[in-house]
This record gives sequence, C-alpha cells and structure tokens, in this order.
Amino acid sequence: MNGSPLLAELVDALRCLPGVGQKSAQRMAYQLLQRERGRGLKLASVMTEALQRIGHCSQCRTFSETPVCGICGNPGRDRHLLCVVESPVELAAIEQATGYRGCYFVLLGRLSPLDGMGPAELGLDRLTQRLAEGEVEELIIATNPTVEGEATAHYLAQLARAGGIRASRLAHGVPLGGELEFVDRGTLAHAFGGRQSAD
Amino acid sequence: MNGSPLLAELVDALRCLPGVGQKSAQRMAYQLLQRERGRGLKLASVMTEALQRIGHCSQCRTFSETPVCGICGNPGRDRHLLCVVESPVELAAIEQATGYRGCYFVLLGRLSPLDGMGPAELGLDRLTQRLAEGEVEELIIATNPTVEGEATAHYLAQLARAGGIRASRLAHGVPLGGELEFVDRGTLAHAFGGRQSAD
Repeated sequence: MNGSPLLAELVDALRCLPGVGQKSAQRMAYQLLQRERGRGLKLASVMTEALQRIGHCSQCRTFSETPVCGICGNPGRDRHLLCVVESPVELAAIEQATGYRGCYFVLLGRLSPLDGMGPAELGLDRLTQRLAEGEVEELIIATNPTVEGEATAHYLAQLARAGGIRASRLAHGVPLGGELEFVDRGTLAHAFGGRQSAD
Repeated sequence: MNGSPLLAELVDALRCLPGVGQKSAQRMAYQLLQRERGRGLKLASVMTEALQRIGHCSQCRTFSETPVCGICGNPGRDRHLLCVVESPVELAAIEQATGYRGCYFVLLGRLSPLDGMGPAELGLDRLTQRLAEGEVEELIIATNPTVEGEATAHYLAQLARAGGIRASRLAHGVPLGGELEFVDRGTLAHAFGGRQSAD
C-alpha cells in the first residue's frame, strides 16, 4: 500500500463498517484523503462522541444519550400502547412509516438460546415488571417475521396473556406495490388464508 | 430518529463516505453502536490521525505521511523508469498486480480544462523538471483509458518527446479471462488491429 503504514491502517480500520470489504475501504480512504478531509475529520469527531456518549434509554432500551429517550420522556405519547421491536433500527422504521403515538420496548436481540440470547438478555424481566404496573393495555408485537422472531413473538404473547394484557401482531400479507406473481409462496398462502371482507 | 440528535448527526456524517446513502449510513451507525464500539473508536482515532498527518510525497505526489514516500525513498527502485498515473489508487493497483520496480509520478487528476485541471494542477512543471534532470529514460504513461485520460496521455507523450525521452503506453486489448462475445466493440477492434505474432 504505497509504503504508507498509516493509510494501510485506515483502510483496515474502515473494514469494521458493515458491508465494507477491502476494495470499498480502499476507495473510502482515498476519497477521504483526496477530497473530503474536512468532512472526514468531522465524521471522526462525531463518531468518537457518539460511541462514547450514546447509551440505552432506561425505560425502553433504545439508543439514547440521555437516561430517558425522547419518546419515553415525551408526555404526549400514549403510555397504554407498548410496541416491542427487536432493535432500534426497527423502532426508527416504525416511527418514520406510521403515525404510531404509543411507546416502545426494544429487545436488542431476539430469543436465540444457541447464541446465548435468553429472556434475561432481552430485558424481559423489565418488560414483565412494566406490564405488571398496569399502565399498558395493548402489547403490539413487532418482531421480525423470521423463525427466531416468531419464537420471540410467541413468548411475548404468553407474557402478555399471563399479565392479562391484550397482545397484537403486525398483519402479514402481500406487500403494497408488489405483483402477486413475485410474492413468495408462504406470504401468498398467508394472505390468501387471512383474506378480509372487500366492503 | 428516535429523538437522539447525536445518532442523527452520526448517520449524517457517515454519508461523506463514497457509496454510502441514508440507509447504509443508518445501518453503519446502528451496527457500530450495537456491536463495534471498540473498533469504531479505533476507526475514529485512526481516521483523525491519517487525515491530519498524511500529505503528499514531495517527489511523486502520492499520499505519504513522510516528506518522501517509501517508493521514492527506496534506493532499490529503478530511477530510469517513471510511470505516470492519475491517482494513488492506480499506483497501488500497479504495485499489487505487476512486478514493476521503477518509480512513479502521480497527477492527482487528469487534464480537464472545464474542471479547472490544467498542467499546473497536475504538477506537470515538476514532471518536466524531473525529465530535464536526465535520469529518466522511459516514461510509462498509465492514465485511464477514458477520453480525458487519453488527452492527458497525449499531452504527456509530447512532453516526453520534447525532452528526448522514450514514452510508452499500457497495452490495450482483450482482458484475460473474458469472452470475446462480451468485450466491447472498441476494445475488440483495437485488439484485432493490434494483433501480435502467435509464435
């Protein structure tokens, strides 16, 4: 690498970013050096600050640089509705796409005993306690539609039932804008079986 | 964005990297926070150091944290051969792929009057001076095979001729491992016209 050890080190360090291999890391390093020094320095300083200061909200476990995140701390949010998601990125997706005004609980994972992810790692003791406080009326389970996500959803539904709280799941079906021809068989069968009145 | 301004700032800052849009930046930020805090902090510190300390070699203009780069400072390199490339990334590609043991000159661009890239911006005064010193015997022109790269190559060949120095170009032709069917017409015509003895 041109005999510049520092450049080689930068390329190597960039590979910690998801989806970045040797070639992209090299392209990023050269571009930063050639055209984006100012923005690169700014990125490095924001990154340091974010990684040092951002922790987790003590109520919903999402990323937050304050002890309680902006959503949990917002008195305008409906505390009777609690939506459970696997990670902060799904929380962000729901916030951006829907008009949901309730609160969240972030598992930071999914049940996966082989990976050492059990109820304790997902903070389910805290969730159980929250459900026991009596404020939550509906638990909206928004785990991912994968095998592990479904298992987690099942577990959460049992938790809700034990606490006498209504549990709901996101609707499955044909995505908007898709063509039936290209929808996978499982989804199509699900959508067909769960057909609704057209009125 | 979850009400974390610092996280939003990190996502925004990550977009200065080439090929990184809103979605990838978000994925990178979440991944760093969730799983790679240590490596992320290391990346930020290496990035700061590299962007502050890496400058250009005073002889060949490639990236270097020392006044003279490892290649120019290596007494084992053949100073009679000088290979001209557009950018450090092409220097690295030639170093990795070929057994070339000569020296380099990096233009840091190509002739492009509309973008304000003229002979002065490409350091051609320094190159002319180097050619006049009489050490260089062959100028290997390895600009990219684009319209601007070709124009730059033409200009460089004239410079060499004016200095009474042999100039050579990289060979054009069919890439190894390709199928003739999929080679573009210009390349195929070039390869056909420039056919060589099969002996």
